Amino acid sequence: MEKAKKIREGDVRAASRLIRNIEDNTPEARHIIKDIFRHTGNAHVVGITGSPGAGKSTLVDGIIEWNRRLGKTVGVLAVDPTSPFTGGAILGDRIRMQRHAEDPGVFVRSMATRGATGGLSNAIGEAIHVLEAMGKELVLVETVGAGQQEVKIMNYAHTILLVLVPGMGDEIQVLKAGIMEIADIFVINKADRDGTNKLQRELMTILDMSPIKSGQWRPPILTVENVFEPEKFRKGIEDVSTTIRDHYQYLVHNNTIVDRIRRRSFHELNDALASCILNPILNQLIMEGEMNRMIDKLLKGETDPVTLAKEVAGKYLRITAD
Amino acid sequence: MEKAKKIREGDVRAASRLIRNIEDNTPEARHIIKDIFRHTGNAHVVGITGSPGAGKSTLVDGIIEWNRRLGKTVGVLAVDPTSPFTGGAILGDRIRMQRHAEDPGVFVRSMATRGATGGLSNAIGEAIHVLEAMGKELVLVETVGAGQQEVKIMNYAHTILLVLVPGMGDEIQVLKAGIMEIADIFVINKADRDGTNKLQRELMTILDMSPIKSGQWRPPILTVENVFEPEKFRKGIEDVSTTIRDHYQYLVHNNTIVDRIRRRSFHELNDALASCILNPILNQLIMEGEMNRMIDKLLKGETDPVTLAKEVAGKYLRITAD
Repeated sequence: MEKAKKIREGDVRAASRLIRNIEDNTPEARHIIKDIFRHTGNAHVVGITGSPGAGKSTLVDGIIEWNRRLGKTVGVLAVDPTSPFTGGAILGDRIRMQRHAEDPGVFVRSMATRGATGGLSNAIGEAIHVLEAMGKELVLVETVGAGQQEVKIMNYAHTILLVLVPGMGDEIQVLKAGIMEIADIFVINKADRDGTNKLQRELMTILDMSPIKSGQWRPPILTVENVFEPEKFRKGIEDVSTTIRDHYQYLVHNNTIVDRIRRRSFHELNDALASCILNPILNQLIMEGEMNRMIDKLLKGETDPVTLAKEVAGKYLRITAD
Repeated sequence: MEKAKKIREGDVRAASRLIRNIEDNTPEARHIIKDIFRHTGNAHVVGITGSPGAGKSTLVDGIIEWNRRLGKTVGVLAVDPTSPFTGGAILGDRIRMQRHAEDPGVFVRSMATRGATGGLSNAIGEAIHVLEAMGKELVLVETVGAGQQEVKIMNYAHTILLVLVPGMGDEIQVLKAGIMEIADIFVINKADRDGTNKLQRELMTILDMSPIKSGQWRPPILTVENVFEPEKFRKGIEDVSTTIRDHYQYLVHNNTIVDRIRRRSFHELNDALASCILNPILNQLIMEGEMNRMIDKLLKGETDPVTLAKEVAGKYLRITAD
């Protein structure tokens, strides 16, 4: 197919259009995805997450530059936060990354979470495959905030980076709970600020609580100093970039890469099952007015939600629900 | 049924056992829920959310006391965070609330989110019904953190309170994005701290961005000062408690209570549909070894997740998936 071929040749316009179509869930996207899928899975996918204001975009920019100097091609997916209030400001931070726009070895794309309910992680998963099909050797996926959605997306990565900043309050650790447990590399950004040592100690305490077998990867805690001190910043970026590479080599040599690839496929399949199974039934219920009738029954206290849901399952599933 | 009757009589032991059974999703719980469901829906359900450390439990404690003085019965559901690292500490904060344990007009229960994947908001929804069946007039649901799960739970409430504290960093506003837009009352807790005015201004700017029609509820921004200044604290609690009552009266007089009740039923039904439809299919796929076979196909690049998911939908659904 012509369009799949273009994407495999790295055509930026074709790839951008496909990603937009994936976001809109068009039938055309489905066909192309099918065609390119077997040409994917060759990139090192790195998930980068952390609170807004943690400086992820600056970090990503540095990692791009470091890898470009080694001649590696890089793809970046930046996932925007849902809030209509702050979306603009955070997008502004990403302008920096756009300086790579002229470099054919770099492809940067933002994906909006607005409106996408449930389908977002699905769309991100497919967009990663597009970047892989384009031949990008390193794929960076940057997400903002905490929550189930972020954890889902991170599960698509081989290597997971959690970016923290000192002095942001203890709540961060709790909010990031789901990510904390799956992170491979911790980065303390803006490490010239007060509270860096305290944060380092806190992280170490948490890491000490999960026993690590000998030979197993122990998540390192790296520091990156302020971007306005170019020498120190460059040193930090180098540490982070080499550690990302080291983690990949660890995964390959240890043969644990297989587990990560399996994890990714498992989560992709689960997301796809949830939407492909639920959506047709929900659409049908809404179209037939059955959804409203069920809600009326609940409001009258005639029955309870699970009883109704089991009736729906009994009607629409070819297997028994119990 | 004997057990349903006991719960309607306010039997604490029977109610606690039922909530535990709901968490464990036992068949016995299903039967009792069915029996009590038509006796529910009469409480004012208030959702209280905010970052860990925002002082929600102290606030809840104050609200309980204020309402008890008016002779109102109160039920509280406290939802624990998922993290194994901090769960204990946060539970500790709740000990204060336990001083109401001797008061038969108050029923406090913690529900763990640990292990519950997807089914949590379902379980919380049913537990609220248990408290309503017990005859509690005010039901407070306290959740920690941000994320889809919290937004889901808040949708079960008639009135939603967002608790913020000054000086916690601007990231809070972003992290709470999903809640921000559905909150009915904003509470700035620990309002003796620096940054209270700044936070107030920020919140007002955000509120000004969403135009409010005349006669419509405009979310007020309330302040509660430190618990160590009893007079000021009491004044703050009184403001919060009366505003909660005012919001309920607004909903009733404006007839918008119907929309809230509908919203609650809609979300309960959606959650129930998701688990009752998906779980039997996923269980079947795992039991038959089909899940592993599908993942193997994905790893070999033979097909893509959505194509596989559509095949599963075609096999298990009585309607066509497209």
